[in-house]
Amino acid sequence: MDLLTETLASIRPVDPVMLEKAQVMLDKKTKPLGSLGRLEEFGRRFAAITGSLEPDTTKKVIYTFAGDHGVTEEGISAFPREVTPQMVFNFLRGGAGVNVLARHCGAEVCVVDVGVDHDFGELAGLIGKKVARGTRNFTKGPAMTRDEALAAMRVGIELAGQARAEGVAMVGTGEMGIGNTTPSSAIIAALSGTPVWEVTHRGTGISESALENKIRVIELGLAINRPDPKDPLDVLAKVGGLEIAGIAGLVLGCAANRIPVVIDGFISTAGALIAAEMDPHVKDYVFAAHQSVEIGHRFMLERIGVEPILDLRMRLGEGTGAALAMGLIEAGVKILKEMATFGEAGVAEGEY
Amino acid sequence: MDLLTETLASIRPVDPVMLEKAQVMLDKKTKPLGSLGRLEEFGRRFAAITGSLEPDTTKKVIYTFAGDHGVTEEGISAFPREVTPQMVFNFLRGGAGVNVLARHCGAEVCVVDVGVDHDFGELAGLIGKKVARGTRNFTKGPAMTRDEALAAMRVGIELAGQARAEGVAMVGTGEMGIGNTTPSSAIIAALSGTPVWEVTHRGTGISESALENKIRVIELGLAINRPDPKDPLDVLAKVGGLEIAGIAGLVLGCAANRIPVVIDGFISTAGALIAAEMDPHVKDYVFAAHQSVEIGHRFMLERIGVEPILDLRMRLGEGTGAALAMGLIEAGVKILKEMATFGEAGVAEGEY
Repeated sequence: MDLLTETLASIRPVDPVMLEKAQVMLDKKTKPLGSLGRLEEFGRRFAAITGSLEPDTTKKVIYTFAGDHGVTEEGISAFPREVTPQMVFNFLRGGAGVNVLARHCGAEVCVVDVGVDHDFGELAGLIGKKVARGTRNFTKGPAMTRDEALAAMRVGIELAGQARAEGVAMVGTGEMGIGNTTPSSAIIAALSGTPVWEVTHRGTGISESALENKIRVIELGLAINRPDPKDPLDVLAKVGGLEIAGIAGLVLGCAANRIPVVIDGFISTAGALIAAEMDPHVKDYVFAAHQSVEIGHRFMLERIGVEPILDLRMRLGEGTGAALAMGLIEAGVKILKEMATFGEAGVAEGEY
Repeated sequence: MDLLTETLASIRPVDPVMLEKAQVMLDKKTKPLGSLGRLEEFGRRFAAITGSLEPDTTKKVIYTFAGDHGVTEEGISAFPREVTPQMVFNFLRGGAGVNVLARHCGAEVCVVDVGVDHDFGELAGLIGKKVARGTRNFTKGPAMTRDEALAAMRVGIELAGQARAEGVAMVGTGEMGIGNTTPSSAIIAALSGTPVWEVTHRGTGISESALENKIRVIELGLAINRPDPKDPLDVLAKVGGLEIAGIAGLVLGCAANRIPVVIDGFISTAGALIAAEMDPHVKDYVFAAHQSVEIGHRFMLERIGVEPILDLRMRLGEGTGAALAMGLIEAGVKILKEMATFGEAGVAEGEY
C-alpha cells in the first residue's frame, strides 16, 4: 500500500464522546455556560483530536512550503519570480512576517523547499525536499504530472509523521510561491464549478487590468487541462502547485496522526481543500486561521466546512495567520486546563 | 481644577504625522503593501499613541473593576449577587478566565474593588478603592449620586496615572459585577435614544421571560431618572455602575497619559462610551477587543467609532477579550519593530 492510501485509510472522525466530555469539563468552570464562545470550541476540539482532556500545546511548528509556478510567465503577479528564493533566505534569517508572528506565539518555523526554482544546496535550517524546479505553465499543459503531485504530497505526509514522532502538539501551515494565488483560484474554480471571476482576486496587489488577465489565464488553464472535479489529485496536478500539494499532504498526515492543524489563508486552504476532498473527515482536525482578503477563500472554507477564527483583512500568507490563530487556540486549551471550577473556587452557580 | 477637568484638558488627538511615519516604515517591510491588514493598523496606532516608532509592549496590565448593583433586587441576572465577591476571590487566586488568558498573553491582572457589597478588609493583591457597597436600585431613584460617580471615575484616572509612572505599556479593562449588563444597556439606550429592547440581551444567560423583565426594568429606570443624554456624567450616575465609572476614568486617564487602552466587551465599552462622550478624541487611544454576543454592544462601538478586533462569540467580561486582543495588538507592534525591510533582506519589491 502506498503512503497516500495508507494515510487516507488511517483517518478517523473525531470521537464525539471526547467532545462531550470536554464540554462537561468546560461547563464546570467559573463562568456562565458557553460564555467563552469559540474558545470553548477550540479547547473541546483540541481535546477530541488529541484524545486527551489535558492536551499539551507546548511544541508548535509552522511548516512553510515554498515552490515556484510556471504560470508566472503569463504576468499574473506584482512580484518577480526571484522573490520566492529571496523570501526563503528571509525566512531562514528570521526576518519575514511569519518569523515575527511565530516567535510571538512561541512556534517554530520550518521552511520546506518542495519546488523552488533555485539551487539552495545544503542550507542550515532549510528542509530540502525539492520535487521539481517549479511547476509548468498550466496554460500550455498540466502544471505537474500526477507523480510529481504525489511526490510533493508525500513530503507533507512524511513531515506530519515526523512531527508526531517529535511530539509536536500543534501544526500550522504556510507557503511562499510567487504567483500561487493563481493555482489556488484555479483549484476552487475546478472543484466547485464557481466562475473564475468569482474566486479570483488581486493576490499581492495587482492592477485591475492585471486581474482581468489573471482571470483569462485561469480560464485558459482550466479549458486546456479539463481537470476532473471528482478527482482531487487530477485537479491538484493539472492546475495546482508543488507547495499546495505539500500542504495537502501535511493536512492529511496531521489528520491521520491526530495532530491539530491550523491552516493559514487562501493558498494553504487550497491545499487543505484537496485533502478534504480526498477525505471529508479531515475537517475534524483542521482549524481555519483567518478569513483572507482573497475573495475565493470563503468558497474554500465553506466547502471544507470550517469557520475562520480571525478576520484582520490579511493577505500575506507564509503562515502569518496560522501563527496568530495558534495563540488563540492555545488560549482555548488553557481555559480547559487551567480555569477553576465552581466547586474549587467556592462560587455559586447560575440558574438559567 | 479637579482631577476630571484636568484629565480632560490634557487629552489630545493622536499626531497624524506619527501615523504616517509608522506606515512608511511598514511599507518597507518584506510583504506586499498593506497585506498585514489590521496588524499594520495596530502597529501604526500604537506608535502614534506612544509617540515612538519602536514602542515597548513589555508591561501589560488588565484592571478588573468590581462593583455590585442595587438593581439585582429586580431579578435581572441568572447569578446571585454573592457571586461578585466570590469571583473577586477567584481572581485573586488566579483561577478565573481572565487570569488564564492574561497569563497566556503575558499580562498582569489588577483587581480593583470600587463598589463590592462585601468587606474584604486588607487583602493581598486587591486594590481597595470602595466608593460604596454597590449602587442603589435605579428603578427607585438614581443608582449613584454625581459625587459617587465622580469618585469612582477618579479611581480609574488615578490608576492610569500610576500605570504611566510604573511604565505600563498597554492597559486592558475588565469588570465583574453581577447584574452589570443591565446598567450597560441603560447607558447606551439613554445616550443614543435607541429603544431598550434593541440594546438589551441575555447577559449571563437569562430566560426569555427574564429578558422581558430586564427590558421593563431598564425602561422603568430611564423613565424614573430621566438621565440627560447631553450630560454623560448624569447618565453614568443615574443608571450606571461603580465599576463602569472606574473604567470610564481609566480610559480617560489612559488617553491623557498616552497609554494604549484595550477595552473588553459590553460593560467595559459602556465605560469607554461615557469617556468618549466626554471627549471624542478618546477613541484615538482605544482598541476595541472584540464583538460581544450582547446585542447592544455594536451600538456602543459604532458610537465611539472603533472596530472590534475579534469575534469569537464571547460574553464573559472580566477582561477576557482584552487579554486576547492585547496579544494581537502586540503582534502588530512586533511587525513594525522586528520585520526585515526589502533592503535589509535583499528582496525585490513589487510593481503594482
